[in-house]
Amino acid sequence: MSGRLVVVGLGPGPAEWMTPEASEAIAEASDVVGYGPYVERLTLRPEQRAHMSDNRVEMDRARLALTLAAEGRTVAVVSGGDPGVFAMAAALFEAVEEDPRWLGLDIRVAPGVTAMQAAAARLGAPLGHDFCAISLSDNLKPWAVVERRLRAACEGDFVIALYNPASQARPTRIIDAFALLRGAKAATTPVAFARAVGRADETLTLTTLDEADPSRADMATLIVIGSSETRFIARNGSRPWMVTPRAYGARQ
Amino acid sequence: MSGRLVVVGLGPGPAEWMTPEASEAIAEASDVVGYGPYVERLTLRPEQRAHMSDNRVEMDRARLALTLAAEGRTVAVVSGGDPGVFAMAAALFEAVEEDPRWLGLDIRVAPGVTAMQAAAARLGAPLGHDFCAISLSDNLKPWAVVERRLRAACEGDFVIALYNPASQARPTRIIDAFALLRGAKAATTPVAFARAVGRADETLTLTTLDEADPSRADMATLIVIGSSETRFIARNGSRPWMVTPRAYGARQ
Repeated sequence: MSGRLVVVGLGPGPAEWMTPEASEAIAEASDVVGYGPYVERLTLRPEQRAHMSDNRVEMDRARLALTLAAEGRTVAVVSGGDPGVFAMAAALFEAVEEDPRWLGLDIRVAPGVTAMQAAAARLGAPLGHDFCAISLSDNLKPWAVVERRLRAACEGDFVIALYNPASQARPTRIIDAFALLRGAKAATTPVAFARAVGRADETLTLTTLDEADPSRADMATLIVIGSSETRFIARNGSRPWMVTPRAYGARQ
Repeated sequence: MSGRLVVVGLGPGPAEWMTPEASEAIAEASDVVGYGPYVERLTLRPEQRAHMSDNRVEMDRARLALTLAAEGRTVAVVSGGDPGVFAMAAALFEAVEEDPRWLGLDIRVAPGVTAMQAAAARLGAPLGHDFCAISLSDNLKPWAVVERRLRAACEGDFVIALYNPASQARPTRIIDAFALLRGAKAATTPVAFARAVGRADETLTLTTLDEADPSRADMATLIVIGSSETRFIARNGSRPWMVTPRAYGARQ
């Protein structure tokens, strides 16, 4: 089997956050496979074939990409952000296990800037110390696992980045998550809602755990919950910076 | 004050992982401030001033950068990886608080690919599900906080990315950390040591928690400890893939 497959991270949106490796992988591909809105971001040449699919069909998409690669095509599977972070890389390797022939393919992953990094860059340095990333989607894991991880994240006083906070199919999990967090963390904990960072409709909302309105989150929102050390640095006429200092306990 | 300052993530090493935004910020800078080895990666024009400093003087470096920006210079503070992840962004904003004039500067952060993402891309998809990132350096936080976070990460069954696992000044903390992890996680938990990913001396070592030799880690090593779901996918004649599937509990 002579085909090649690369799982490519396009970053959060703008071209300035897409690595040269990712751009090159797209340029070299005979076939580009991905969720429609990600494929549509790209400018492909007429001879490049685009295979667009709906959201939530990751395994079908992975199998299609592997089938094309096994036919000798040069395939790019595109993902927003970093394909390794709540995106296509895991689905691709799960599919690889289904057919032993696919294990022989030349597969690689091109990393990218993921949503929490783009959000953190806009906010200041909220991820400046130990942090965790949790997807609130319970499509593929029991909600009890999400709760266990949220509790553990509070116990460890991690900064928490919440991915996939809400969708039309599960609008209330984020409400449940905030109820749990409010029971375990200080009311004044800094919180940021970062929506569509890097895109035309980018919105950043700074608030506190007590005052946050979790119902404002949607699938394009990345939420950052501070640790006990995270703070806002006020500025005149501008949004405060959100910073988690490198030192722990220095002010206590 | 007319100066500008951007904290730039250079990525883990190779140019193919440096974003166009980062390249542009370097090209536009009159002054580049950073740890020597990061500045030396760059090809600067003769009129661009390089300000190189030693490691572990982050606050001095931040103050120098802010002083130059306050003088009207266009300053790029460079960081390996992502400046927002265990790097210069937090130090910069801590320094901003020291002088109210600095709060008025035009400051921004350019995110980058961080070491755990580069390591994950090489390994397969070990960060494909909820994960946390912990720095083992206790220069600025009590070791008890590291232990608390390691325990919480085990309790939450997160994949764990360990940054700064060891240095000449603290060679044994990684031994302590592994002893803690071995008491809390299965002996067969997949573990990867990813050293100098993207550089000429890149080394990837796959092992298990039971068999790992933590003393092999140094400051250039990023360690990934799997969750209970993380597994190796064997390949003929190649390193296995390390994958954390998107589904939780499906095989139990």
